[in-house]
Amino acid sequence: MINDLRNIVKKFIGIDIGGTGIKGVIINGLGNVLAEGSVPTDADKGEEAMMSNIVDLINSMLSSVDIVKREISGIGIGCPGLIDSKNGMVVFAGNLNLKYYPLATEVSERVGLPVKITNDANAAALGEAKFGAGKKFEDSVLVTLGTGVGGGIVIGGKLFEGGNSAGTEIGHMVIAEDGEKCTCGRRGCYERYASARALIAQTREAMSEHKESKMWETYTLETVSGKTPFDYMDTDETAKNVVNKYIKHLACGIINIVNIFRPQVVMLGGGVSEQGERLTIPVQEYLDNEIFAGMTYAPVKVVKATLGNKAGVFGAAALLM
Amino acid sequence: MINDLRNIVKKFIGIDIGGTGIKGVIINGLGNVLAEGSVPTDADKGEEAMMSNIVDLINSMLSSVDIVKREISGIGIGCPGLIDSKNGMVVFAGNLNLKYYPLATEVSERVGLPVKITNDANAAALGEAKFGAGKKFEDSVLVTLGTGVGGGIVIGGKLFEGGNSAGTEIGHMVIAEDGEKCTCGRRGCYERYASARALIAQTREAMSEHKESKMWETYTLETVSGKTPFDYMDTDETAKNVVNKYIKHLACGIINIVNIFRPQVVMLGGGVSEQGERLTIPVQEYLDNEIFAGMTYAPVKVVKATLGNKAGVFGAAALLM
Repeated sequence: MINDLRNIVKKFIGIDIGGTGIKGVIINGLGNVLAEGSVPTDADKGEEAMMSNIVDLINSMLSSVDIVKREISGIGIGCPGLIDSKNGMVVFAGNLNLKYYPLATEVSERVGLPVKITNDANAAALGEAKFGAGKKFEDSVLVTLGTGVGGGIVIGGKLFEGGNSAGTEIGHMVIAEDGEKCTCGRRGCYERYASARALIAQTREAMSEHKESKMWETYTLETVSGKTPFDYMDTDETAKNVVNKYIKHLACGIINIVNIFRPQVVMLGGGVSEQGERLTIPVQEYLDNEIFAGMTYAPVKVVKATLGNKAGVFGAAALLM
Repeated sequence: MINDLRNIVKKFIGIDIGGTGIKGVIINGLGNVLAEGSVPTDADKGEEAMMSNIVDLINSMLSSVDIVKREISGIGIGCPGLIDSKNGMVVFAGNLNLKYYPLATEVSERVGLPVKITNDANAAALGEAKFGAGKKFEDSVLVTLGTGVGGGIVIGGKLFEGGNSAGTEIGHMVIAEDGEKCTCGRRGCYERYASARALIAQTREAMSEHKESKMWETYTLETVSGKTPFDYMDTDETAKNVVNKYIKHLACGIINIVNIFRPQVVMLGGGVSEQGERLTIPVQEYLDNEIFAGMTYAPVKVVKATLGNKAGVFGAAALLM
């Protein structure tokens, strides 16, 4: 009860830096939103422009709800790229033109509050773990199925970032030796099989090979999306095969991660996760059959993430909790 | 300096339970051995026989060096099987005929000292991390190349066991979807390609296919060992190909693990690791080329483990540190 009261009283700022926009929230320890806002990133205008936008965002959120700085426990920031969270440093973020940039110190000096930072995928995982699909569990993994496959891991309620906070690159785990070439330089990486981009490529390939398919009748190789095979899977054999193969790849990587981290829950996020139970039910079946040493001790559930693109900003705020 | 003195004064008991024998040590916080010993496991004679052997081992080590119990900070035990380290429970250990056996409590009640337990692979990883090849590093991974591929992970100086201490089953990470059938039920698991057993199978296959090879002249399919292809690699093309392919598989799984955990050091243990630089140099090359986002930030070294079959008993003692 005391703990609950404390969670209501304490306030946290979360900032999620994206390639084009920056989102912000002020939440209390229960995850209730007290204020929110957004500003452009303006990465092309240089670091100072971005800093100034972040400070404006924080000040406008504070003044919108009449909260003064000393009520805030701290600021958490999720940022794309390679992040040294211990030293608050953006080691490298191509989209933001940042290299060895002391983001935490720069924001802290301007705003006068403690700042913690992490990679944006990690922030999303912490957000889902604390306030989303993982909130009932101590140990959770978020697998984000977008352009690539992102991952974030929370163990014992704490973000697990790997050594030098440079780990959890689950998208670059090879599941098919000598397989498809990946942007990272390896062959057969998980994200070459389980990302939204991979799903679209798999759909295009199947359509080209099966011109009798209903997908081919309605879509071109340009208009097809990751949603298409799911839309047609009940009426078109080609679509059904695409979905089944995709789910098999998806499950393969998830089981690898489960055998290593043994979370209580695996949460699927990103565009493809909108398919909900069409993904979670068959992936759960693969997992039930293949998890190491069975499900009796330490069972694992597969669910859809629930916070969508707000996971990152909630998780950023949760860095201070 | 105070810290050093404290480490010399504090004493710890480590116990490593194997299928046939149980090893024990008393060490101080610096890893200096004050006493050691061993007893048979006697798993076939039941739990009481095993308990009695463990108590005898502890008492005989204590009396051999005139140390009294109250000088000991605690007892750590490494045990094969599925271990619930939080509750000190052996969930399942087939070779020991144990199922939901409260090992920590049973030993603690008999000896009158605090007891912590972990899986034997984890204990070995902690031992190597604290007192072996990983002692200069905060974050390390031990990959053991034996009958299977075992793994243990230490991050920030602490053992990482995964949720419910049931994780880090890196041998059962699929690196080749639809590949060779594994004992765990999956196909294409890492240990089907990188274990000593896999290496022997790969050697046998190559010998059968290449009866002109020098290995075929000297060995039969029964007498060949994991050492054979390394012994012949400089003079026999078939042997060289076996080694090169094996190292490629080995590196594939190591890079997966590095991309997830980003340790400072990967230590190779188990029988195959006796090949030393014949493994570590080429694996390091693969890693340098394929590690995610390059080696500049957060570099990773591949080395041979140094404690051999004593890693487990040292790591068990280190559970209390």
